[in-house]
Amino acid sequence: MPVKPQRLTRKEYDARVPKLREELVQLQVQLKESPFKILLIIAGFEGAGRGEVINTLSGWLDPRGVETFALQEPTDEECERPFMWRFWRSLPTQGRLGIYAGSWYTEALREETFSHKAPGDIRHELERIRHFEKLLADNGTLIIKVWLHLGKAAQRDRLNTLESEPSTAWRVTPEHWYHYRNYDRISRAARLILKETGRPGAPWTIIDAEHERTRNVAVAKLILASFRAHARKLKPSPTARIPAAEKRLAARPLRPAGLARLRALPLDQSLSAIEYELKREKWLGRLNQAVRTANAAHRSIVFVFEGWDAAGKGGAIRRLTSAIDARHYRVIPVAKPTDEEKAHHYLWRFWRHVPRAGLVTIYDRSWYGRVLVERLEGFATGQEWRRAYGEILDFEQQLAEHGIIVVKFWLQVSKEEQLRRFRERESTPYKRHKINAEDWRNRRKWAGYEVAVGDMLALTNSSFAPWHLIPANDKRHARLTILKTACRQIETSLGGGI
Amino acid sequence: MPVKPQRLTRKEYDARVPKLREELVQLQVQLKESPFKILLIIAGFEGAGRGEVINTLSGWLDPRGVETFALQEPTDEECERPFMWRFWRSLPTQGRLGIYAGSWYTEALREETFSHKAPGDIRHELERIRHFEKLLADNGTLIIKVWLHLGKAAQRDRLNTLESEPSTAWRVTPEHWYHYRNYDRISRAARLILKETGRPGAPWTIIDAEHERTRNVAVAKLILASFRAHARKLKPSPTARIPAAEKRLAARPLRPAGLARLRALPLDQSLSAIEYELKREKWLGRLNQAVRTANAAHRSIVFVFEGWDAAGKGGAIRRLTSAIDARHYRVIPVAKPTDEEKAHHYLWRFWRHVPRAGLVTIYDRSWYGRVLVERLEGFATGQEWRRAYGEILDFEQQLAEHGIIVVKFWLQVSKEEQLRRFRERESTPYKRHKINAEDWRNRRKWAGYEVAVGDMLALTNSSFAPWHLIPANDKRHARLTILKTACRQIETSLGGGI
Repeated sequence: MPVKPQRLTRKEYDARVPKLREELVQLQVQLKESPFKILLIIAGFEGAGRGEVINTLSGWLDPRGVETFALQEPTDEECERPFMWRFWRSLPTQGRLGIYAGSWYTEALREETFSHKAPGDIRHELERIRHFEKLLADNGTLIIKVWLHLGKAAQRDRLNTLESEPSTAWRVTPEHWYHYRNYDRISRAARLILKETGRPGAPWTIIDAEHERTRNVAVAKLILASFRAHARKLKPSPTARIPAAEKRLAARPLRPAGLARLRALPLDQSLSAIEYELKREKWLGRLNQAVRTANAAHRSIVFVFEGWDAAGKGGAIRRLTSAIDARHYRVIPVAKPTDEEKAHHYLWRFWRHVPRAGLVTIYDRSWYGRVLVERLEGFATGQEWRRAYGEILDFEQQLAEHGIIVVKFWLQVSKEEQLRRFRERESTPYKRHKINAEDWRNRRKWAGYEVAVGDMLALTNSSFAPWHLIPANDKRHARLTILKTACRQIETSLGGGI
Repeated sequence: MPVKPQRLTRKEYDARVPKLREELVQLQVQLKESPFKILLIIAGFEGAGRGEVINTLSGWLDPRGVETFALQEPTDEECERPFMWRFWRSLPTQGRLGIYAGSWYTEALREETFSHKAPGDIRHELERIRHFEKLLADNGTLIIKVWLHLGKAAQRDRLNTLESEPSTAWRVTPEHWYHYRNYDRISRAARLILKETGRPGAPWTIIDAEHERTRNVAVAKLILASFRAHARKLKPSPTARIPAAEKRLAARPLRPAGLARLRALPLDQSLSAIEYELKREKWLGRLNQAVRTANAAHRSIVFVFEGWDAAGKGGAIRRLTSAIDARHYRVIPVAKPTDEEKAHHYLWRFWRHVPRAGLVTIYDRSWYGRVLVERLEGFATGQEWRRAYGEILDFEQQLAEHGIIVVKFWLQVSKEEQLRRFRERESTPYKRHKINAEDWRNRRKWAGYEVAVGDMLALTNSSFAPWHLIPANDKRHARLTILKTACRQIETSLGGGI
């Protein structure tokens, strides 16, 4: 139950609003220069005035710095992706305030209250939401969540008042009265949601919505107070230098077992050209069939290719794609992020390429950069890259739960083999563009990368997105193993049903 | 009729392919460093092997530098925008080769052949396509269009062969035979399309598709030859300095009548605070109603706000948005383009924000930057900004034809009034962020800008997207005029039906 604040008279309200507006616009000016964004989520009971609050706030704010997200029926492009995809794509750009008129909570509340599920069955959804908000909050986003509370009698009065005015009567639908009749049920669901998703970094503020003016001022004051508190405790900018001690830690394994597994991988298998030719056709055919079956069943496939420089990712991807209709796959080469990508959470640039139903996305390097190059080069702080393992598991789980088949490869070559290939690249005119000073620099950090790869293998191996370690000293052997492995995982996933 | 090239034997083919592949991959390496992109459009008769050609090419190319666009049923997000929107969003990113398995031609051919329209009724669509391709070609894009030709007997033989093989029989559908039975009709339509859309910068190459190997090699050779020719004639990079003579030309009017109209605008109207308050409520209510009616009719609205620095665009937008439900509009402040935007045609960044059905997009500055700041500052060459008037007209016409209401404002203040406002901004603490050295720099170029504005008003005023000149020396008067004008244009458009 929210504390009922003193009601504001019209006169008091009119006296306070100009100051509030000025402060809000000042906030927006500061926000433009700030390295974070604000999400404002307005949820609450029907008739509590979510739309009115948003319109009032929008009138007070400079509309050029606001993005209002209205939850409509998901489009077919949205339905074909995991549930959270449409919220990822709705995130405001840097320096702007995102206001959510409908949010992930709207759906959760609807499901808990009106679906045929048992009470509390949405706990899994709520966990997903908690993760999503934590991930954004950890990234510096200020998340302000407002629950507009209305007692049962107050709800009835509000609906009656709206209905009695010709200018507002159209806003009251039978659904509103249905909500009123189910007040207790909705109230229970709301309590569950508030309890399960109120967390540091994304706390709920319950605001009594019975009195409109008081409600509007309370929301505005909450935004101002939250912004100030957030700006104060802002961490130093991400470009700040990582202390040497932390860098040394980055080179030490979290899970020595992963490193051991990597080192124990035998790399001496090989395949003759004739054997390869013979078997390749068979497996290409089988893969073609598997991908077509997946397509027909509207199951998407996400391939992740990671591996040492010159381990043969490009060649392996070419062989793999030769089995797939060109109209069905897309290769995403992961290099330097664009500035739009840099302005978002590091997973955003991968979410945006999640394939439509039945299609294939091949990531040539991936989100694992966070726990490899970013860990080693100090682009991510120790906290950030340690947190990433969980964030990545959660991301891949969402893909898998949506029915997407996630196939991950690590291409392993020995340090000697890499050297041989680097030298070959340098001495072959048409391969020279494939090698540069950075490759040599990375090579000097081999030991550190080995540790990071070991941790990655140990910490992000899951039943829904297992790692496949591919011995890649012999290219033919590696390519055939990749074909076979891809085939088997896709076939198993399809056999297992959706 | 294409010249039938010498058929390649299997042996000849196998001998030539490795060289071709190497050249194609070399092309891709060069393309990465090139300031343009390539669109490859593969069209042609059913059974001519469009899919096979694309798959073969994709196998030869490095898939990491290719984006294949498969034309599927338009999604609901696509249906809600003008026809070309989904092609704009499909454009490959810089340095990549876009292969179009289905394109704007697929739809045009279908419409000409199988709809109930009279023959030649697609000429308007073809003109649209011609404009689209011209615009991309003018921007440096290399457009390669291949028509895979197949004689009637050859088509029958191909379909029969495919059907007789168990592994390919599934590829022949009743639709294919339907096409065969209508060969002459399709052939006529194809001739029309090829004739109407083959233009310098986007020419068609007809390739005989009867013999598969010969066809594949012909397409690859065409790509290589086109790329080489294009790279040779590439203009100097857009960052090259514009010669002084051309800069002087930029300051001379193309249409003195526009400048005269601008200068003749009386700026002495004003409105008292009381009058304003009284009338504002009425017009806000009317605008609210008009926008809601448009929303219910799934008609979108695009507002364009242009005007001198400090002319009051921001304030006018705030008053306007206060009449619209926050969930229904989006303000796009147009500042420096992001690097993703810079890598595309200058209209791309505006196409991406075209609203969904029933929604409102407000551009705070717009595509008119091309003929204002880019013209004056030499960011666009004389050719580029002169061409832009036609490109913009075409863009706005597409919006209008889709039923989008396009409302454009130019906010006119006198040079003295601007000075007063600049000084006021500088001396008011909370307004100081609104003024910087660039504003003063632009002010010194007032005469040049005045000429550019005049030309813009004269050359981009159309029945489907008229310019509204707003005297803005008095803010209240300007805001009310904007409300009224917006209202009237929307009401008229709605009254006129879709």
